Amino acid sequence: MSVLILHILYIVAITVESMTAAIAAGRRSMDWVGVCLLAAVTALGGGSVRDVLLGHYPLVWVEHPEYLLLTAAAALATIAFARFMHRLKRLFLLLDAVGLVVFTILGCNIAREMGLPPIIIIVAGMITGCAGGVIRDILCGEIPLLLRSELYASVSVLTGIIYLAGLQTALPHDIVTFAALTFGLTLRLLALRFNWHMPKFVYARD
Amino acid sequence: MSVLILHILYIVAITVESMTAAIAAGRRSMDWVGVCLLAAVTALGGGSVRDVLLGHYPLVWVEHPEYLLLTAAAALATIAFARFMHRLKRLFLLLDAVGLVVFTILGCNIAREMGLPPIIIIVAGMITGCAGGVIRDILCGEIPLLLRSELYASVSVLTGIIYLAGLQTALPHDIVTFAALTFGLTLRLLALRFNWHMPKFVYARD
Amino acid sequence: MSVLILHILYIVAITVESMTAAIAAGRRSMDWVGVCLLAAVTALGGGSVRDVLLGHYPLVWVEHPEYLLLTAAAALATIAFARFMHRLKRLFLLLDAVGLVVFTILGCNIAREMGLPPIIIIVAGMITGCAGGVIRDILCGEIPLLLRSELYASVSVLTGIIYLAGLQTALPHDIVTFAALTFGLTLRLLALRFNWHMPKFVYARD
Repeated sequence: MSVLILHILYIVAITVESMTAAIAAGRRSMDWVGVCLLAAVTALGGGSVRDVLLGHYPLVWVEHPEYLLLTAAAALATIAFARFMHRLKRLFLLLDAVGLVVFTILGCNIAREMGLPPIIIIVAGMITGCAGGVIRDILCGEIPLLLRSELYASVSVLTGIIYLAGLQTALPHDIVTFAALTFGLTLRLLALRFNWHMPKFVYARD
Repeated sequence: MSVLILHILYIVAITVESMTAAIAAGRRSMDWVGVCLLAAVTALGGGSVRDVLLGHYPLVWVEHPEYLLLTAAAALATIAFARFMHRLKRLFLLLDAVGLVVFTILGCNIAREMGLPPIIIIVAGMITGCAGGVIRDILCGEIPLLLRSELYASVSVLTGIIYLAGLQTALPHDIVTFAALTFGLTLRLLALRFNWHMPKFVYARD
Repeated sequence: MSVLILHILYIVAITVESMTAAIAAGRRSMDWVGVCLLAAVTALGGGSVRDVLLGHYPLVWVEHPEYLLLTAAAALATIAFARFMHRLKRLFLLLDAVGLVVFTILGCNIAREMGLPPIIIIVAGMITGCAGGVIRDILCGEIPLLLRSELYASVSVLTGIIYLAGLQTALPHDIVTFAALTFGLTLRLLALRFNWHMPKFVYARD
């Protein structure tokens, strides 16, 4: 059952990532093709980086080209409805947080199925959750937000740890998945609400 | 026959991409090694990204290391003859357009030989044609030109669609290849001549 | 015997690369997670790029997840002892040079074991030695230092050539390894000491 729910949430997640990437593209006045490309690379980039690093072929979008079309459609819809987007800012932050934890769990599962060790499972989850946004920021000429602020990678890592720890117990897989999703989502939303940050490392010498 | 012509055009294309990358390196005062590296990454990067994403090994330049030497030689020749380069600007734009469509068709063919679905064949063509320039722009600290302006990715996608549609007909493969090349090249040159652009998505809220 | 020494030097090298990446992260006020991520990507990125391009799976850190922990630990130690780092600047430059030549030799060996041609062996060494720093600079929003100045890629290429040429002789493998390491390290330190540079290509037209 959790497989179906995860799949639906995955569709929601790549749609939302496409739309936030399209907004980022609009801030830099990219053209329509650029908007679609940035959306596709952002939404599908995290899973692609994970699969390339793990040698896990074929990549998701090569096996399911319809996801490429979905990201492009979401990007074009964003262009069409851009004037209403700012009203949905809170909804987007919520759905982006859903995307982060869903990508994380799905990334962990790929590494688990490949029989990889626990650290790599957690790293695979984090790459899936975070690498798309890093690529988006680089293509936009920005230092990746991930490296500078917010509990984002940390939420992904902690979600992976909770998920993996839960699977060591006798709890049913569905319950563990649900618990990890809830934990990660709550942590991310609390971090957004209360503006939690990791401490910064400031080195100003020479 | 078209295989031989495509091969010759491929050699021309990686040479030209190397030279335009070398000019971009010269604008940023890179050193000679940097010029050669940027040339090699630009000329061979599109095919490399495609092959890595599709899991298509070995990569072209690993099987044909002479292409690496060719890109470096073209970069060094550009340094030597830099003072004459600005007179050849139109020729370069023409040959760059040839490169775009040739890379596209060759990229499509790799994906076709792997038995991949039509959307992926077209995407493989576009990645082959465009990704090298994206890597060049990122290494030069620029937002990729591809995302911002010009009919470039669009020309590649349309060339791929024409090529793939042609292969569904009873026309000989050579004729289809020639028609797709001609279509793509004409469209690109018209876009350059008449300054055609995709509409931009400008999002200036918050 | 040289296998053991190379292994120890490799551990030293990824530790040092992690620490210099952490300093770069501190200059941009990244948060602690960002510091650890930048360290891991810099120290293990060169080998990862090489393995992905050559299709050499599994990647080093997937097989040895302890290296990931080592890079994160080195990054955190850098944060803790940041105030003493500037006194160790010379030591860091020395160890970074050791890292460059050790990464190069190890990268050459991977390509040799895969039976690849000489040019690719040398390129594999250079990618291993240099790509991590390129990724670090891009993530920091800088044009890669590698492209702009210093004998860095050149030292790596020359070290690879010396190493490969030595293996064609009747000399024992250990001696050849030691000679190539010494040559590369000396060349790099001389370049730092006497501020040797490659000539730059400056193109200022239009």
